[in-house]
Amino acid sequence: MNRVMVAGSGATEFGKHPERTGRELFAEAATSALRDASVDPDAVDVCYYGNFMGEVTDEQGHQGPLMAEQLGIKNARTTRVENACASGGYAVAEGVSAIRGGQADVALVGGMERMTHMGTTEATDGLAMAADALHEGPVGMTFPAAYALLANAYMDQYGGSREDLAAIAVKNHDHATANSRAQYQTAISRSDVLGAPMVASPLGLLDACPVTDGAAATVLVSAEFAGDHDIHTPVEITGSACAGDSIALQDRPTLNRTLAAERAALDAYDAAAIGPDDIDVAEVHDCFTIAEVLALEALQLYDPGTAIGAARREETTKEGDLPVNLSGGLKAKGHPVGATGVSQLVELTGLLTGYHPNSEHVSDATVGVTHNAGGTVASVAVHVLEVTE
Amino acid sequence: MNRVMVAGSGATEFGKHPERTGRELFAEAATSALRDASVDPDAVDVCYYGNFMGEVTDEQGHQGPLMAEQLGIKNARTTRVENACASGGYAVAEGVSAIRGGQADVALVGGMERMTHMGTTEATDGLAMAADALHEGPVGMTFPAAYALLANAYMDQYGGSREDLAAIAVKNHDHATANSRAQYQTAISRSDVLGAPMVASPLGLLDACPVTDGAAATVLVSAEFAGDHDIHTPVEITGSACAGDSIALQDRPTLNRTLAAERAALDAYDAAAIGPDDIDVAEVHDCFTIAEVLALEALQLYDPGTAIGAARREETTKEGDLPVNLSGGLKAKGHPVGATGVSQLVELTGLLTGYHPNSEHVSDATVGVTHNAGGTVASVAVHVLEVTE
Repeated sequence: MNRVMVAGSGATEFGKHPERTGRELFAEAATSALRDASVDPDAVDVCYYGNFMGEVTDEQGHQGPLMAEQLGIKNARTTRVENACASGGYAVAEGVSAIRGGQADVALVGGMERMTHMGTTEATDGLAMAADALHEGPVGMTFPAAYALLANAYMDQYGGSREDLAAIAVKNHDHATANSRAQYQTAISRSDVLGAPMVASPLGLLDACPVTDGAAATVLVSAEFAGDHDIHTPVEITGSACAGDSIALQDRPTLNRTLAAERAALDAYDAAAIGPDDIDVAEVHDCFTIAEVLALEALQLYDPGTAIGAARREETTKEGDLPVNLSGGLKAKGHPVGATGVSQLVELTGLLTGYHPNSEHVSDATVGVTHNAGGTVASVAVHVLEVTE
Repeated sequence: MNRVMVAGSGATEFGKHPERTGRELFAEAATSALRDASVDPDAVDVCYYGNFMGEVTDEQGHQGPLMAEQLGIKNARTTRVENACASGGYAVAEGVSAIRGGQADVALVGGMERMTHMGTTEATDGLAMAADALHEGPVGMTFPAAYALLANAYMDQYGGSREDLAAIAVKNHDHATANSRAQYQTAISRSDVLGAPMVASPLGLLDACPVTDGAAATVLVSAEFAGDHDIHTPVEITGSACAGDSIALQDRPTLNRTLAAERAALDAYDAAAIGPDDIDVAEVHDCFTIAEVLALEALQLYDPGTAIGAARREETTKEGDLPVNLSGGLKAKGHPVGATGVSQLVELTGLLTGYHPNSEHVSDATVGVTHNAGGTVASVAVHVLEVTE
């Protein structure tokens, strides 16, 4: 099995780019990644591109070859991957798999979404296509409602408060203040979060990530290719796993755990031959504050029922023992759906190599994990990144 | 590199199923494939699912885990693949790649589309999302117009007539008369085709494939898994390749050839260590009659300019030397977009093993090829199947 190295990465600024086309956004991110990697577009063997709902936002399907064309990539197998908000993470996993199995030496993995040109209602309706259109959509269960159900189930079982959740939002906004790519580079207070309009109890407006435009890309290469081409690749992807669950919440055995993420984490740790105690830093899918709690427990970074207070106890802040979402997370960095899972790798690679504005907070970190979820974690991709050079 | 064997296949009847859900259609096809393979759902390692526009037809994205759930598949990495009308072929290619590289022993590859509950105009509009939404859509270039451009470019260069094209439609309908899965099991005459309403000159209504609901699935296994589990696998996928091109026709150097298909064919033949002369039977992407002509030339089964008359000369009919689209093709079997590329393998496997209603016409065949195209062949997947047991 070939080793998979991160050769380069790039991303646009996340935020509102209603005047820019999707192809323009992706080209910026991917060109930047290819340059960062010193890899020529002609060398790309496979390209996996994550996009959730281009059909709805831009009446544009078939975006794989469209994106390859922008980059002058002529000879790669180019495939659009869609697993809702985990589209980017699955694109990464496919690239890893192709290199591991010797099917490719160079994989460009990336993703893009543009949504801010739509109204928030239309965007929320679009995002609801990640839920079950027969059993969840017709009862009006858009994602704020679905994650509110998860939050209530969790808090019924384990306790916790809106203040605990608010501390997560405050933390991730604080992290984003240093990140020039983040959509919201502004601090917020706990009272801001608690005073924001309620969306679906217990989740208020500032418990939710925003609607975002943006793109991210990473160039993955085999260790052999890196050696042959003298490419500096300090970060290796040592674990990569995906898992699925029932798409409708009604079909799950429990709502206070995310079982697919637990399985993906175990598989990724096994592949990397690490345990949760080895992890120094994490980028997790905090589409809502409660989602970060569920992620940290699924990743075994916290025991069941204990992650709810982690941010409030300042364990996951930039000064804490286990900084989580130093990028700002989906919450403050933004969530351009198809790009998010790739963006996590872009940010984490920067954090591990000292090239991130928040690197100083994890200067000794050598092992990091990403967690990217689709729907209510009906799809999930977990990646372990390690500094191995 | 592990050998990839076809262990089982299944498909729904193609046609109008407006009252059936997508999950029901896919479950029928995939359950049938798993039973045919004698493979338990728990044994599936990866699942690649092709669907083009579920967001538009059913407001349902995130169909990967949804489909896995219907089948009781719990532990597989399940990914929706979208490359327009080649979504199915790319799903197959991903499954092949995962087994070849040792990432999986068992891959369920399939696809589904349901469209007939929409009006034909809405379906045509939806299909147009496979073209360039910035440069082709705004000028009204839906696919009948795009393929008419290709037909005119071809006939300007090489000659040929509407009668030549009509012979292709007549042939494929004739083939479908024996295929109980086909949408149109009815013969048509050349005068029917020539007398049908003109859609985009030179293509009339009967030069085009219909709008179709349906699903198809194939279970692929490594040769080692087949041996260990005593699974009979007479057919091997010896070649698998994908290639891309500019999505917009305006960016192509030529309109009378499909260069991406030429590259994919060469790669697939190289992998299989065969040449075009070795091919006994072909299933190609005849969304319009001219598309079959372009496919046969790209596959090097005919020299440039010579495939236009192949059906009329009865070379590609069921009695000819090289039967093409014995299933009825997209033209008469139907074209449920995401399922089509997989369906080609289902039909070809049947033809090569004697279990197809038209097997008698290719009783000595040992090598077959499939060609599945997206858009105006901006994405293409080519597979070589051989009887190796």
